[in-house]
Amino acid sequence: MSDKQFNLAKDWFEDLRNQLINLVSEIDGKEFVQTNWSHRHEGGGTMSKIKGPVIEKGGVNISSVYGEFNSEMQNKIPGAKKDPKYKATGISVVLHPVSPKIPSMHFNTRFLITSEKWFGGGMDITPCLDFNKIDDYHNGLKKLCNEYYPNKYSEFKKWCDDYFYLPHRDEPRGAGGIFFDYLKNNWENDFEFIKNVGKYFRDFVENTLIELKNEKWNEREKNIQLVKRSRYAEFNLLHDRGTKFGLETGGNIDAILMSMPPIAKWD
Amino acid sequence: MSDKQFNLAKDWFEDLRNQLINLVSEIDGKEFVQTNWSHRHEGGGTMSKIKGPVIEKGGVNISSVYGEFNSEMQNKIPGAKKDPKYKATGISVVLHPVSPKIPSMHFNTRFLITSEKWFGGGMDITPCLDFNKIDDYHNGLKKLCNEYYPNKYSEFKKWCDDYFYLPHRDEPRGAGGIFFDYLKNNWENDFEFIKNVGKYFRDFVENTLIELKNEKWNEREKNIQLVKRSRYAEFNLLHDRGTKFGLETGGNIDAILMSMPPIAKWD
Repeated sequence: MSDKQFNLAKDWFEDLRNQLINLVSEIDGKEFVQTNWSHRHEGGGTMSKIKGPVIEKGGVNISSVYGEFNSEMQNKIPGAKKDPKYKATGISVVLHPVSPKIPSMHFNTRFLITSEKWFGGGMDITPCLDFNKIDDYHNGLKKLCNEYYPNKYSEFKKWCDDYFYLPHRDEPRGAGGIFFDYLKNNWENDFEFIKNVGKYFRDFVENTLIELKNEKWNEREKNIQLVKRSRYAEFNLLHDRGTKFGLETGGNIDAILMSMPPIAKWD
Repeated sequence: MSDKQFNLAKDWFEDLRNQLINLVSEIDGKEFVQTNWSHRHEGGGTMSKIKGPVIEKGGVNISSVYGEFNSEMQNKIPGAKKDPKYKATGISVVLHPVSPKIPSMHFNTRFLITSEKWFGGGMDITPCLDFNKIDDYHNGLKKLCNEYYPNKYSEFKKWCDDYFYLPHRDEPRGAGGIFFDYLKNNWENDFEFIKNVGKYFRDFVENTLIELKNEKWNEREKNIQLVKRSRYAEFNLLHDRGTKFGLETGGNIDAILMSMPPIAKWD
């Protein structure tokens, strides 16, 4: 049963990857460059990277890895204490646009199996200037959550706000979105939710890029973006669980740090 | 006795700060901008920052703080278990030059008092291109260590190499130098050593900047520097003890992150 579910999740993540790279590639005009990598235990992934006139640095990474947690991780991961074996499959996406008018966009969903099994993931955006679609963005996420997890939206939103926060600067990384983990209520419902979060992200990327890619911006705005990106870099290296998980489990370094901004300014 | 020693160390760090900012300011042509900050317990510091035609981002920070370690830190810091009170005074310097021909230069020394007392510190440099003075640089440090700590040079050098290392990339941050801590053998000798490490750094900065500041460089070399700096940023946020100590003890965020490169490229 678990194996079948694992493969269904894995296939969806691959399908979504294909949709996303086709979409972004068409809007940007550049092709993604794909690299396969192997995990030090078993499995691996494919990283697709783009650098073009619209997306300054973008990456879509899918991976399916099989291994054993070390003793430190065993204590942190649900269901890993009695048996360190795990399977994980997931997709993660980060798009850092050239234009400071377009927010950086981040998304990931994953399915993990230890002696338990669950979905996790989320999406969030980081505008550096005013972004007039911010209410639509949040309202769309609310509607989506209400469909599959009634009354959970405010919890998922708060989780995202709490997570993407830089305590040392007392400021949020961006404008938030939703964040969730350990979804193991009803597999079919959870999987539908996961698929719809992916579709929501895909549509948001499409609409936002098409609408804003030709808007003019100036050097002053670009500079604000570069400084904002230094906070992004700080968050990823100081706090991000995905980064820590990747470094702990010996994942591919380019894939783990794919989300780092192309250029960041601490000046 | 300890108070007198604390004040002697503090006075020397201030004296060295003055020497360094006068020197760098004269070579660069720009003035340092000074900011005072207070510690959330007691004490504080002065951060001096420069941004000019020779130094793209430079900072000299001195601080003297008095407080109590939290329980986590109490277990890590010598002499803090039975009494959480501490005093610390120190200087730290980071210079990120505009020219990729000139290495980034880093130095710090500090004196700590808990129920024990000791000096710590070090210096290291990060060239991104060939640097033809590298042998002189290491040999000078060796000679200096041999004068005060016979047979300790290789230990101090190794400590530096081991410390400024990025395991996730399996590469060193830079070319190393020396790194030492818990010097509490003979206070007078230790203090002389600390003073001479400071003088050595000052002379190295002076000679290197004067010799290389007018050397031509091109965009390809600048790009190599920007990518090298992303490793510098990764190290500081993922591994640096000073950064962790600062964040743990609620220090001034600009002072803690002073060492971050002005611009870094993950592209």
